[in-house]
Amino acid sequence: MRHSFASLRHGALALAAIVAFPVAAQFRKPEAAIAYRRGAMTVMSAHFYRAAAMAYGRVPFDAKAVADNVEIATYLSKLPFAGFVEGSDKGNTEALPKIWTEMERFRSLAAKMQEEMAKLNGLAKGGDIELIRGQVGVTEKACKTCHEAYTKE
Amino acid sequence: MRHSFASLRHGALALAAIVAFPVAAQFRKPEAAIAYRRGAMTVMSAHFYRAAAMAYGRVPFDAKAVADNVEIATYLSKLPFAGFVEGSDKGNTEALPKIWTEMERFRSLAAKMQEEMAKLNGLAKGGDIELIRGQVGVTEKACKTCHEAYTKE
Repeated sequence: MRHSFASLRHGALALAAIVAFPVAAQFRKPEAAIAYRRGAMTVMSAHFYRAAAMAYGRVPFDAKAVADNVEIATYLSKLPFAGFVEGSDKGNTEALPKIWTEMERFRSLAAKMQEEMAKLNGLAKGGDIELIRGQVGVTEKACKTCHEAYTKE
Repeated sequence: MRHSFASLRHGALALAAIVAFPVAAQFRKPEAAIAYRRGAMTVMSAHFYRAAAMAYGRVPFDAKAVADNVEIATYLSKLPFAGFVEGSDKGNTEALPKIWTEMERFRSLAAKMQEEMAKLNGLAKGGDIELIRGQVGVTEKACKTCHEAYTKE
């Protein structure tokens, strides 16, 4: 059986849409959408970097704390992208306007981050620091790939 | 069997501490703690008010959307209070300094909100708009009681 590139790509994008937008976005004004996505990113990032600090040995490793923090980061990873609604490219945001002209690529990078975070969540529950450290790096790279492409310096 | 007021109060405070602080708070600087708690409140509030708008009939009622939004609000309700660390009473915050001199009362109001949100979450899964509307009101009151006492106007 053979799949065309187009059909694989379509499948990946459909998955991205499901993963990235679990709850319909409804914001009364663009500023609310911006505050929402920034808030979700801030909370996700706080928990991810707490776990990362332990994985990298900057803070003593505590398997339970790593697992708890990654669990929360994984939950939060599903939220921010509902905030990238039309018309929210201006205001208190570091998001580049090209997000809205390259929405498919943006969503697929978001889905990639969510996927890597979910893998990290599975490993974090196992408590093996080597495996966790490796996947923290992969997840961080997924975050950075998107931020480098789509945020102001 | 008879419980003294002091022992009941002690029990409630112990519960409040467990409910309000599920993950150890670690922030490198007060600004990070402030951004974290504001972010968590913003996300919680966005989902709570989306559900409230449907319960109050400002937006067409969709039982699944109400349940999904309240589920997220309930998860988020556990997070912000870890951000009220010592030294985070100054900066980009509307929190009044008396939070830190009345921490027991503050924590018990936070726990009350969490408790009412969790009750709302149970009712939201049932889909009965009358019951949901009533508990949305009770939950909103729990939010406002704490905000009126502990935030700048």
